[in-house]
Amino acid sequence: MPTQHEEDIYWMQRALELARRGIGITSPNPAVGCVILDCAGQVIGEGWHEYDLLDHAEVAALKVAQQHASARLKGGTAYVTLEPCNHTGRTGPCTQALIAAGVKRVVAATGDPNPNVSGHGMEALHAAGLETVLGVCENEARRINEGFARWIQHKRPFVLMKVAMTLDGRIAPPPGQHSAREPYWITSEAARAAVQPLRWQADAVVVGVDTVLADDPHLTDRSGLRRRRPLLRVILDSALRMPLDCKLVRTADFDVILFTVSKDDKKITELTRRGVRVEVLPAEAGRVPLPAALDMLGSEGILNLLTETGTRLNTALLAGGLVDRVHIFVSPQIMGSDAVPAFKALAHPIQMGTVEVERYENDLGICSLLRDPWRVDPEAIK
Amino acid sequence: MPTQHEEDIYWMQRALELARRGIGITSPNPAVGCVILDCAGQVIGEGWHEYDLLDHAEVAALKVAQQHASARLKGGTAYVTLEPCNHTGRTGPCTQALIAAGVKRVVAATGDPNPNVSGHGMEALHAAGLETVLGVCENEARRINEGFARWIQHKRPFVLMKVAMTLDGRIAPPPGQHSAREPYWITSEAARAAVQPLRWQADAVVVGVDTVLADDPHLTDRSGLRRRRPLLRVILDSALRMPLDCKLVRTADFDVILFTVSKDDKKITELTRRGVRVEVLPAEAGRVPLPAALDMLGSEGILNLLTETGTRLNTALLAGGLVDRVHIFVSPQIMGSDAVPAFKALAHPIQMGTVEVERYENDLGICSLLRDPWRVDPEAIK
Repeated sequence: MPTQHEEDIYWMQRALELARRGIGITSPNPAVGCVILDCAGQVIGEGWHEYDLLDHAEVAALKVAQQHASARLKGGTAYVTLEPCNHTGRTGPCTQALIAAGVKRVVAATGDPNPNVSGHGMEALHAAGLETVLGVCENEARRINEGFARWIQHKRPFVLMKVAMTLDGRIAPPPGQHSAREPYWITSEAARAAVQPLRWQADAVVVGVDTVLADDPHLTDRSGLRRRRPLLRVILDSALRMPLDCKLVRTADFDVILFTVSKDDKKITELTRRGVRVEVLPAEAGRVPLPAALDMLGSEGILNLLTETGTRLNTALLAGGLVDRVHIFVSPQIMGSDAVPAFKALAHPIQMGTVEVERYENDLGICSLLRDPWRVDPEAIK
Repeated sequence: MPTQHEEDIYWMQRALELARRGIGITSPNPAVGCVILDCAGQVIGEGWHEYDLLDHAEVAALKVAQQHASARLKGGTAYVTLEPCNHTGRTGPCTQALIAAGVKRVVAATGDPNPNVSGHGMEALHAAGLETVLGVCENEARRINEGFARWIQHKRPFVLMKVAMTLDGRIAPPPGQHSAREPYWITSEAARAAVQPLRWQADAVVVGVDTVLADDPHLTDRSGLRRRRPLLRVILDSALRMPLDCKLVRTADFDVILFTVSKDDKKITELTRRGVRVEVLPAEAGRVPLPAALDMLGSEGILNLLTETGTRLNTALLAGGLVDRVHIFVSPQIMGSDAVPAFKALAHPIQMGTVEVERYENDLGICSLLRDPWRVDPEAIK
């Protein structure tokens, strides 16, 4: 016989699976899953949140349960990957829905990342006489909503820095050793394919104009996975060097935003006419101020930002303490110090947290959190 | 019922275990293990080679079998991790011993790496009417004797390059950012502890004099594991800058060899008097010629050389095509381009073979063969 805790883990794993179905379709809301058991321990409802369908995961699961076996809800248990809300937003409070349905026990994986409402949902359930358990599979649950946790606290996107480099930290051969206008791939096809799910999980992807000039990328989400909002493609281009005939401009469809500090109205008009949204920010040392750009993206509901930047921006983002997680694709080769480094000089080493290693054929993926978006620490954000 | 091939793999795994007992005590001979079954499939003898005990693994195992159940050797099977020798060296041919014992079947993991004798052992057994099988667990068997395979073909040691670096390929902080005479560890204690078994498996370890000046290392094998010959400590010091009061000189006991191109007889005499063997080689571009140094080490029966060198020598060894395997310890941090790189400029990227990943707490070990010492290819060695 499994213990109650083992049972809880089992069903929470299922709720996490359901929550993951929401990736790509819940932002700017969190991805949440819910499983409802009757008092005999049998599943009578499952649900997950989808932004356009409004219903939170708990309500979606309750509706299924009510349809199938409404009488059996009384005395049941709800597993939910995020603390149920206790306020009315686009929908009514989930706490009330659970109480009204007669559920006896609510198990939540993690509290609400918003420090102002965290705990209120569990308290409301407890006050109504329900048994509450918090913290089952917490790490896995938090992983799913890193973007939401960062954004709800600081109104800035969670920044995932993607780098594809050699084992000695080089992102391109020495200048002149390969002809421009011919893409040079550092990593294997399998590693490159693994970038697509990262784009899918992101609300926006950002590059510097140097990358546009060097590689002329599309920056589209070619994962084939379902997404609600188009991937916002962001370019940082202080001096407005963006070519009008690049792929990004040619394919712009209100999904390309360019941050600049240039006041070249003619170029701005030309870009705008081609469907590129241009945002002029006040220059900082002649450059686009990165925190201000992140603030603006955050104000538009961008929870997850994927960076596919080059040497200078990688370094500026790290030095500015703006990176939440790194995902570094490593090709097993050594290029030597004449090749282009992934990072320029840093005043202090950047220390990583617990490292996860993935394999893509003979390439590696090294993934680590640089700072925890779930940690409530206003000082962590400058 | 397991198939014959599954049985063969099972017993060869055991023979490989026995072979590994010889690491540290067989060089300059190969490490070999042997299991002998009687005709009913029951083990009656096991053995492994140890240089000082003379007996090859087959003979060691036969002796055990003869002691316990000599009558049951007839019709038995011998599992041996390396093709039995068919010539008289320090001992008689193992093929004859197996034939004389009445063994019916011999399973060998891999052929002899010496192209001049490879196959002769199996042929002699076959000619005597024994059943022979070659190639069971070949990759694992070859892994154990990479040093022997390189050395027996080219009279040069197998070169294992150890590097401890950050994720962006840096082996030390920017010059001036930490005080000299104070060791700065890039990798974790667990990763550093993993270097000791690498020293144990090596016959010699090499550093440049810059490393001596920066870190004043002992370069001793502190694994605590059994070894026959002391670890030879090798220094490359073109200009004879070796300090007389460094730990290597103070602990020299006929186990320190210094290669130089300097003819400073006074310094050479001083070093020699302190137990350091100094070898003067003809300069190449003012430096110690690395191939000549490897040749000299090979001529003295050094099969496995571990490099713990810094930027310049790492690069020269790689550029010279002298490295057989790399074992790179990676600390999850980014130091930036002002920090000391592990490798300087290379004319061509160095491509690695299949990558193995190990973990030491939060550090990684990335291990890969750059060229296969078992491959018979005289062109591969310059």
